[in-house]
This record gives sequence, C-alpha cells and structure tokens, in this order.
Amino acid sequence: MTYRAPVAEMLFTLDHAAGLARARSEGLYGDIDTETVAAVIEQAGAFATDIIAPLNRVGDREGARFSDGAVTTAPGYAQAYRTWSAAGWNAVSAEEAHGGQALPTAVWALTSELWAQGSMAFGLCPLLTHGGIECLERHGSDEIKRIYLPKLVAGEWTATMNLTEPQAGTDLALLRTRAERADDGSYRIKGQKIFITYGEHDMAENILHLVLARLPNAPEGVRGISLFLVPKRLIEEGGELGARNDLVCAGIEHKLGIHGSPTCTMVFGEGEGAIGYLVGEENRGLACMFTMMNNARLAVGLQGVAIAERATQAALAYAHERRQGRSGGSLSPSPIVAHPDVRRMLMTMRALTAAARGICYRAAVELDRANRATDDVERKAAHERASLLIPIAKAFSTDIGCEVASLGLQVHGGMGYVEETGAAQHLRDARIAPIYEGTNGVQAIDLATRKLAQSDGASAEEVLASIEETISRLRATGPALGDSAARLAEAKAALGRATAFMREAANDQAAILAGATPYLRLFGLTLGGAALAENALAAMGSNQDGGAYVALARFHAENLLGGTEGLARAVISGAASLGEAADAALAL
Amino acid sequence: MTYRAPVAEMLFTLDHAAGLARARSEGLYGDIDTETVAAVIEQAGAFATDIIAPLNRVGDREGARFSDGAVTTAPGYAQAYRTWSAAGWNAVSAEEAHGGQALPTAVWALTSELWAQGSMAFGLCPLLTHGGIECLERHGSDEIKRIYLPKLVAGEWTATMNLTEPQAGTDLALLRTRAERADDGSYRIKGQKIFITYGEHDMAENILHLVLARLPNAPEGVRGISLFLVPKRLIEEGGELGARNDLVCAGIEHKLGIHGSPTCTMVFGEGEGAIGYLVGEENRGLACMFTMMNNARLAVGLQGVAIAERATQAALAYAHERRQGRSGGSLSPSPIVAHPDVRRMLMTMRALTAAARGICYRAAVELDRANRATDDVERKAAHERASLLIPIAKAFSTDIGCEVASLGLQVHGGMGYVEETGAAQHLRDARIAPIYEGTNGVQAIDLATRKLAQSDGASAEEVLASIEETISRLRATGPALGDSAARLAEAKAALGRATAFMREAANDQAAILAGATPYLRLFGLTLGGAALAENALAAMGSNQDGGAYVALARFHAENLLGGTEGLARAVISGAASLGEAADAALAL
Repeated sequence: MTYRAPVAEMLFTLDHAAGLARARSEGLYGDIDTETVAAVIEQAGAFATDIIAPLNRVGDREGARFSDGAVTTAPGYAQAYRTWSAAGWNAVSAEEAHGGQALPTAVWALTSELWAQGSMAFGLCPLLTHGGIECLERHGSDEIKRIYLPKLVAGEWTATMNLTEPQAGTDLALLRTRAERADDGSYRIKGQKIFITYGEHDMAENILHLVLARLPNAPEGVRGISLFLVPKRLIEEGGELGARNDLVCAGIEHKLGIHGSPTCTMVFGEGEGAIGYLVGEENRGLACMFTMMNNARLAVGLQGVAIAERATQAALAYAHERRQGRSGGSLSPSPIVAHPDVRRMLMTMRALTAAARGICYRAAVELDRANRATDDVERKAAHERASLLIPIAKAFSTDIGCEVASLGLQVHGGMGYVEETGAAQHLRDARIAPIYEGTNGVQAIDLATRKLAQSDGASAEEVLASIEETISRLRATGPALGDSAARLAEAKAALGRATAFMREAANDQAAILAGATPYLRLFGLTLGGAALAENALAAMGSNQDGGAYVALARFHAENLLGGTEGLARAVISGAASLGEAADAALAL
Repeated sequence: MTYRAPVAEMLFTLDHAAGLARARSEGLYGDIDTETVAAVIEQAGAFATDIIAPLNRVGDREGARFSDGAVTTAPGYAQAYRTWSAAGWNAVSAEEAHGGQALPTAVWALTSELWAQGSMAFGLCPLLTHGGIECLERHGSDEIKRIYLPKLVAGEWTATMNLTEPQAGTDLALLRTRAERADDGSYRIKGQKIFITYGEHDMAENILHLVLARLPNAPEGVRGISLFLVPKRLIEEGGELGARNDLVCAGIEHKLGIHGSPTCTMVFGEGEGAIGYLVGEENRGLACMFTMMNNARLAVGLQGVAIAERATQAALAYAHERRQGRSGGSLSPSPIVAHPDVRRMLMTMRALTAAARGICYRAAVELDRANRATDDVERKAAHERASLLIPIAKAFSTDIGCEVASLGLQVHGGMGYVEETGAAQHLRDARIAPIYEGTNGVQAIDLATRKLAQSDGASAEEVLASIEETISRLRATGPALGDSAARLAEAKAALGRATAFMREAANDQAAILAGATPYLRLFGLTLGGAALAENALAAMGSNQDGGAYVALARFHAENLLGGTEGLARAVISGAASLGEAADAALAL
C-alpha cells in the first residue's frame, strides 16, 4: 500500500477551485484562519493514512460477520473506531451545545473525504452518525437533544437511516412500516427495513435508528410518512443504557464491495412493537430527511473522489515501478508511466479526480455561505447555488469514481484483476456510490427539474456566469494552458444551450427526464474544467511549482471536454429516440 | 435467471450488419446455406441456454479449487464439458482431416459468443483449445498433428497458452523460460508461467500446454523465442496416455471474476525438465502465436458482447418487473422501464451491445473472405480488412462489455450491488476482457500503427468507404431513423480527419501513441453506428417487424455518436498534453 493523504492538494483545491480563499477574504469564516484549517486537515490526513488505511484490505477480506442477530466487524475496526471518536473526529461539525466543534462544512467535507480515502467501508459509519446528528440538531425535541445528542457527538453511539423496504427504494411513497401512538407519548414501530448501513455492529454501545414509518390513517404517499428515533437499547431515567428495544438485525447482505460495512436487514416490532420517539412533526418525516440530504449527498460524492484518489495513487505507484517495453529509444525496459497510452489513463484519472473534488468542495463552501453569510438574500442565493451543485457533486463524482477505479485496474494489467493487488477492491467499493443516497438518475432529475427552476433559473445563471469569469481569466494567460480557454468556452456554450433547452422545455416532462443524465454529465465536465482552471490560474500566479495543476487543467480541457457538444445534443434530442420509438427495442 | 440465447438477432446481424448475406450471394460460402447456419446456431443457443447458463452462478460462487497441484472445477463443469464435447461443439471450425466440421469462422464466432453468454468462465476452456487446434493445424509437424489433433478436436484433451511470466506480460521480449535440446529431438523446458487459463483442471484427461521459451544462445528479445508443445501427460507409442510430464500447477489466482475458470501458475521442469516438442521453427515461436491472434482476439471481443448481452437481458427483465414511481399520469407504480432515464440506460446497453456484435461479426466474415475468396488480391485485401477490424472488435467490444455490465448493475439499483442478483457478477467477469489477449491499449496501438499502415492505408480507406455507402443509403430513408444519416456522416467525417492525422503523423510516434486509444474508440463508435444502420435498413426493407433495429440505430446515432468530434480532437491534440507537460502531474 502506498497511500498517503494528499493534504496539500486538498487544501489548495479548497482555497482556489472551491473559492474558500475568496470567501475567507470576505469574512465568511470569521476567526477560523488558514492555519487552523490546515492543521485540522493535516491531522485528519495522518489519521486516515496511519490508522484507517491499514484496515481497508482486512475489511474487504474478512468483511463484517453475522451470527444470531449480532454483527462482528472486521478485525481492528472497533478499536480504530474508538480511537477515532476519542480523538474528537466525530464532533468536527456538530454544534458546540452538544460537545461539537462547530467547524465549517468545508472542513467537515475534507475530513469526510479523508476517512473514505482511508477506507470507504469504515468511513460509512461516521457518515451515518453525522446525518443523525444533523437531523436531531434540527428536528429533535429538547429532550431528545439532551438525551441523545451528546452521545452521538462524542461517537459513543452511532446512528442509522432506515428508509428502504423491499418494495420501496427510490419510491418512498410505497413504504409500509407502521407506527402507532402509545399512551406515554412514544410510538410503537413495526416493519422491515433493508439495506441499512451499520444497522448492527460491535463498534459502539448503542445504535440510534432513524426510521421512516406510517401512522394509522396517515395520508397516502410521501405526505403520510413520519420520522422516529428508535434506539437499539432504551435509555433509562438517569441516562444509563437500559433494555434491548424490540428490534433485531435479521441478516446482512453479501455485496460486491464495501464488505467492511454491514448492510443490514432490520426487523422492528416482532413482539409488542419497537419503542420509537417522534422526530419533527407527524407526517413530516420526509421533510426532516430532506434537511440532511445536502450534506449526505455531498459526502457520498466525496466517497467517489476518495476512491478515485486511492485508485490513482495505486496506479501511479505501479506505473512507476512496473517495467515493460522501451519508450523513446531506451535501451532497457521503461517504467510503464513513460508510455503515452498509460499516461493518458493516468492523466484521465488525475484530472477527473481533481475536477470532481473541486466541484464537491465548491458545494461545501456554498453550504457554508448559506449558513454563515450575514445577508439574507445572499444566504438564500448561496443555498440555491449549493442545492444546484449537490446533485452534480454526488452523481458526477461517483460516476467518475467508478471510471477512475476501472482505469486504475487497467493500468495494473493482469495484476489488477488479482484481488491481492487491491485495484479491484477500489472498483468494487466505488460501484455502490452511484446507487445509494439517491441513484444518479434521481440526482440528474433533481438537477434538471427542481434545481434548474430555483428562483426562475437564477442559481444556474450565476454558476454559468462564474464559469464565464474563469474563461475570461484563462484567455489572459500564456501558452502553458494550450487551448484550455477555447475548449472550456465551447463546453460552456454547449452547457448554456442545454440549460436553455431544459428551461424552455419546463412543461415537457418527457424531454427533461430523457435529457437529465447527459445534462448532469455535461454540467459536471464543464464545472470540473472550471475548477481545474481555477487551480491552474492560482498556481501560475503564485511562486510555488504549479506544474501539476496546469498540466491537469490543460489535459482535461483538450482531451475530456471534447465530448460536451455531443452531450448537449443528447440532451436536446434525447426524447425523440427514447419514447414510443424505443418500445420495440425494450420489449421482453 | 431469465437468459435466452438471442439467436434471431444474432443471425440477422450476421446476415446484414456483418454482410454474410452479400458474401453468400457472391458464392463465398459455397454450399453452406442459410438453413444450415441457422440450425447450427439454434442448437448452440439451446445448449448455451439449457446446459451452460445454469453453471454460471455456481461457477462464480464455488469457483475452481486448488489443492496439492490439482484443480477441481465447480460442480457441474466437468459433466457439462463432456456433454458439450461429445455433442461435437469443439469440432465446429477444425479441419475435416482431424475430425473437424470445417464450418466457416463466422459460424464458429457465433457459437463462441454463445458459450460465453452461457458462462464466460466455462467458455474460456474451449476458447483456449480452439487456439491450440489452430496453432497445431498451421505449425505442427505431421507427427504432432497425427498424435494430438484428433484428441483436441474431439475435446477429449484441452489446450493452454503459456506466454506470461511475472516480469513479462505485454513485453514478451523479457521472458526467461528456457528450453534445451535433448538427444531424441525433443526439448526440456524449465521455467515459471503465470496467468495460465485452465492450466490445470479436471474436465479432460490430458492438457496440452503451448509454451513460449528460449533456446540456449537464442537471439535476445522477441526474435529468440520458440514455441513448444508440452503435454501434461506424455503419450506412449500406441497413443495411450503415459507418465506425468515434469510440470505442475503451483496455485491458482484469487480473481475479481471468472471464478469458474482456474488461472494457474505453472512450473515446468522442477526435475529433469518438462519434455516438450518444437512447434514451427526454432526462434519463430512468436510468429506461430501471431497466426492464432486474429481468432483469439475476435473471440475475446465476443466475450465482451456476450456479457453485455447477458447483462442487458437481466436488466430488461428487472426493469419490466420492478415497480417504482409513476410515469405519465399512471395511478399505480409503473415498471421502471417506463421511466426515461431508465430507458436511456437500457437503450445504451442494447445499442452498444448490438454495435459491438456487428463489428465482431463483420471481422469474422472478412476472415472467412480471407480464407475462402478465390482471388488472391481479394484474399489479401480481406485479410487486411479483417486485421484492421480485429483490434477494434477486441477493444471496443470488451470496453463496452464493462460499460454495459455496469449500467446493468445500475438499472437494478441497490439489488444490483447484492451478489445474489447476478448483475454484479457480469461486471466482475467482464472486467478481465479489456486486459487479456493483449490489453486494449495494445490493441489501439496495433490499430494506429501496423494496421493503418497496411497497403499504404488501403484497408482503412476501404472500411471508411463502406461506411460512406451506408450513409448514402440512410439518406434515402424516411423519417423513422431521425437524424441518423446526418449524425453518422459527422462521425464518419471526424473519423476521416483523425485517420488522416494518424497517417500523416506516421513518423511522429509520440503523437500516434498518445492518440491511439481515443482513435480506436472513435472508430468503434462509428463502425458500430454503420452496423446498426445496416441492420435497420435491412429491417425496413423486409416485411418483418424491424422496429427494434430501427430504434437502436436511431438511438445510437442521436445519443452516442455525439462524442465522436471530441474523440477526434483528443486524437489530434493528445500528444501536447501527454508529453513532458504531464510530468509534474504524474510524479510520485
């Protein structure tokens, strides 16, 4: 294993591609200075490199084991988790009232990426707990906050999200889990949930399940869903752990990857009913879930970036070590990094990883702006920009996570197909991220419908205008960036045309849905190109050696942006070939 | 499992996209009539569906097991193999002199795809034997042919290819296995080979290893490599099986996929040396291997098509069954095949699969033409066209095999990530095909250097001209094909520009190597579009319901050909950003 947390590149990208430096100069981050942020990320990087990364292979090989309702995580997981939470990492972004450090979302985002770099399967547990903290901070009653939040923030207890049921995946309107009011103000939950990440494990003494369920006589569909806190172990008056609640893990899935992360089937209320406490209002459960969505989707996008980073580091190391063929008149076999087709794979990996990272971090900075800006109008605008960027951050990053992991396997040749090398695990792990936390199809539809329509399209216009600004600055540079300005301008023009089409087609649902996926890809490639260009421009303007940033921006523009025109066409003409015309080809 | 061999679509594609109907009308296939071909493929399809396909999951789950030098294949494999060879399937394309049926390469290609559809891991064993038969037919001495070929053709013995060593993968110049002349005219082989597919197993009573090795004082590099036949069990005077040869399987790999296919480390000559018999001339071993290459690469390309077919069938079946969300005002949940973004995934899968199949079959028909045409000039031209198409057939088809399998997993949502569903196995199995039998990078370089240069570019011109002809016919059709003609014409123009660039850059090795991979992709997409168009034109001209062929051609042209302009740019400008400019980004 050659992995090292790429702290310098992450911080540089946060400052430049994501605009943290500018936001800080505008006073958005108060007294949190560069050194503080750098120190936190450096420590997190060291933890990811030294403590978490060594668990990645054993987690894959041994996996989580299920026996008689109990789940045993892979050797080393429980100890590492306790070390991690004892070091305060779970508390990074939580409110100070419950023991949190209240650091910005941008800082949390980078730490979240780092845990996933170390081991995606390990990092999933804190990710779910983070969602639980956020949910209870915003929607929990004072009593719930008092009892549960300090334990969650300290990492002594973990949290889960219980949404999916066998018949209800993307379509939560179909869920059937029931909740009934009890005399003491609590509820009794009965039903089965599947695909519950870390639904059961041995890393913490209690697990808080956030469960979506229906009350009797609730309205049909998504307006009849309520959210409940259902602890694995009940809490006694004095705060001590009490009896087991009426819920059980009935089994774990045998998955393609993230073997270290137990994916549980949870059965609630086989007896009298699991005791649950309402979070938020009755029938408003989905709205409570939605408030967590931006951060959760951003974190999953960063899983894509994280796996891409690991895969790229491994492929680069192998390409420097493995010698085959002779390049450029060499007398002895050359390291394969010298061969142009291998360089193309590696540069594609590097560029897509950096582009996706820039998009994710930019979304994080916008989320901070939405929370921290003093001006209401600016807060709303920033929230909408963040909301526009989130589906791109999630879907583009997780798609390229798979693509980069696949390229990394290819760079290793036959060795990549052998599990011991580790390249295959990256592909297996990465492949879940385009599916969970809203499939990438759902992200594309969210972008093309709700997000484009925000404030009559203003947030999309603002993001497009920012890309135009980057292009103007690119045009003023010398030859080092090659045709980057022209290529990015063409990409932005294609994105502009596709955006106009989507806006104008607002009443033609079929056209929007048919074009959504290529539209998101087009947006991601273009936005990613702008992010790489911002890094390159900053590197050229500083005294440090900016060669890598310049190289990535140029490669991306000249080699990967060429597809944007075709994507715009697919957006605009997609519906014609996907409607009834396709029926004959899609028949069984 | 819902798999059924798509015999009708395969035969239609062979006739039209691949041009078999025209070749037959020219007399190329002698007295082999349509009915004979259809009957063979229907029987093979039934065998693949009924006997092989049920082994696919058990092969993955149980895999091949290694113990003390022996390999036990998954339950059912050995029995199915014996049934398969007893039915004569191994003899399809072999010469009649050794018990073969001497059917055309095109027929063999379809049967080969069918075995891989049933189970890629199972189909690999016959694939290797086929290579052995071809090699011995062309290069074996009369004695070797007499002793070994009838057993191979009958499928009683199987064959392997022993090329790779730990330090010598793509670069065979580095191989170290030694061969020494013995007094009796045979040779003694010593060395270690890795990644030997079916190097040891329990499906046949003997295994014939074809081994590349160096004689003492052989020239360095690839001109000092000889080829030897090294049987697992030696053959006695009367033809009976004799003693074990001095070779052993030292272990099998733990791989991402194709678990049913044992990938062996073979150790030759730990004692006195394994007894081997020279095949072809001394130091001409690589040339012998090259004669097998076209068929082997075509067959691997067809593995990509086969996995894509399986993945597509599974995804389509799931999309018709799974209900989530409401489409077009439906009052109850709709099958997800009704949702435009799911339709886009499924149509992409169908179109890419059909396009790659068309390319592979066309290469097969050209191989037949190269063998069967009466005119020497035409035979040479056909051989060169086939040689041009083969790297595209191999690399494009295996790349899309992975892409389609990944989309298939996505269509299944969370269920796709659970191994029991089977979608994940397709992705794991498919992922080897871009690596073995010459990595797809090697294919691209072969296309961009040797193949484009054939007869001063004549074969490339001929293929481009054939695409132009398809476009002319498309232009004369009505509106059912939408913008297909215009889109295919643009793609062909981009391919033409990229081809001209590659030809003109013949002395600029760096430019050619940097552009090779996007060039192959560009060629594949365009050629695949022409293949789909040929099928659509034939379907529109016939009385049968051609709706599916029309839909696929149109979808491909309007949605997937848009990227060709960008690929041409990457070809032409790739070197600028991949040379020294990339060094900083590729440093460790």
